[in-house]
Amino acid sequence: MNGLFITIEGPDGAGKTSVINELYPRLQLIAKKGIVKTREPGGVRISEKIRHIILNPEHDEMDERTEALLYAAARRQHLVEVILPALNAGKIVICDRFVDSSLAYQGAGRRIGMDEIAAINEFATEGTTPDFTLYLDIDSDSGLRRIQQNRAYQIDRLDSEGLEFHQRVRHAYLKLAEEDPFRIHRVDARMSLPDVVEASYSAIVEAYPQYF
Amino acid sequence: MNGLFITIEGPDGAGKTSVINELYPRLQLIAKKGIVKTREPGGVRISEKIRHIILNPEHDEMDERTEALLYAAARRQHLVEVILPALNAGKIVICDRFVDSSLAYQGAGRRIGMDEIAAINEFATEGTTPDFTLYLDIDSDSGLRRIQQNRAYQIDRLDSEGLEFHQRVRHAYLKLAEEDPFRIHRVDARMSLPDVVEASYSAIVEAYPQYF
Repeated sequence: MNGLFITIEGPDGAGKTSVINELYPRLQLIAKKGIVKTREPGGVRISEKIRHIILNPEHDEMDERTEALLYAAARRQHLVEVILPALNAGKIVICDRFVDSSLAYQGAGRRIGMDEIAAINEFATEGTTPDFTLYLDIDSDSGLRRIQQNRAYQIDRLDSEGLEFHQRVRHAYLKLAEEDPFRIHRVDARMSLPDVVEASYSAIVEAYPQYF
Repeated sequence: MNGLFITIEGPDGAGKTSVINELYPRLQLIAKKGIVKTREPGGVRISEKIRHIILNPEHDEMDERTEALLYAAARRQHLVEVILPALNAGKIVICDRFVDSSLAYQGAGRRIGMDEIAAINEFATEGTTPDFTLYLDIDSDSGLRRIQQNRAYQIDRLDSEGLEFHQRVRHAYLKLAEEDPFRIHRVDARMSLPDVVEASYSAIVEAYPQYF
């Protein structure tokens, strides 16, 4: 594998989607061997079907550990069909959320435990870890306010969780960033969108100049 | 939890289904607090949908680890909705296949590794282990011959694997039985059906007389 695996992470309301939409075309212009933008389930049919089970609003009997295993299964198939082939072809892969999201949301948010979530994701990824993770950090109050203000958002099950849930998620992200400062690059998402994009762009290009 | 959790395991062709069909009504007659017969996915709708993804013959791109995670997810939901409530009500649960099947088939048969399969199943079961496992043992040659001879069988994907696959599965079962002789009771499945049923019945009733 000789591609570059980049993930974008952050709590709800951090503005990940807007940042990726600005960042991707700029990186695409300068990427030497091509760049693939993806997010789970990424159009992979098995992962799409798994996601359909997870998100079905009728499934209120869904156990939290069942959900975590389904996320890991969908992740595995997307990894094998989309991410690994692109990395093996030497490309840059920029993925909207990956294992860190499960650690933060299922592990800390839903309180299953980050170590336990790490174990099933280790099984799913066989050790494939992002080379670089852009962590868009925002405090939970500001994040939730953005979600509520932004009418373009489709409110989903996780958005409707309470403030304490979102605080646990953010603290988990901060802990991960502290434990792995070489991989995880924190960007203050309370800045204006152009400033966040600029900081993100510079961080990636400076960390891995050989790919650009 | 004060019920009794019994599982029935064995390689293909060992005759599990026939044995359970004879054994269950006999145990039902003498069970003090009731007995529930089940098998994954057990009519649980989320688990049925997961199984539908696993068994769909169009899904030939299914990765082996995706499959193992999906089995663990379906198991979790069936455990939470069917097995644990029955055990909590003090009942006997007799379940056709459980974690040992994944260890033998995915771990050894498909060579993912038994320790790795154990880890994701530990996540799924949170340590719920059968009190008693009836292991119907048959050598792979005899087992495969029975599958081929018995026209009542619906040949599925696993049945169509080769002899070496089935030998790895059997050796895994023997290893598990050797490591956990208190839980796993081996019965020679080459005996006649009435003899296998009698040996199984006696083993269960003698091991747990307080439930009968």
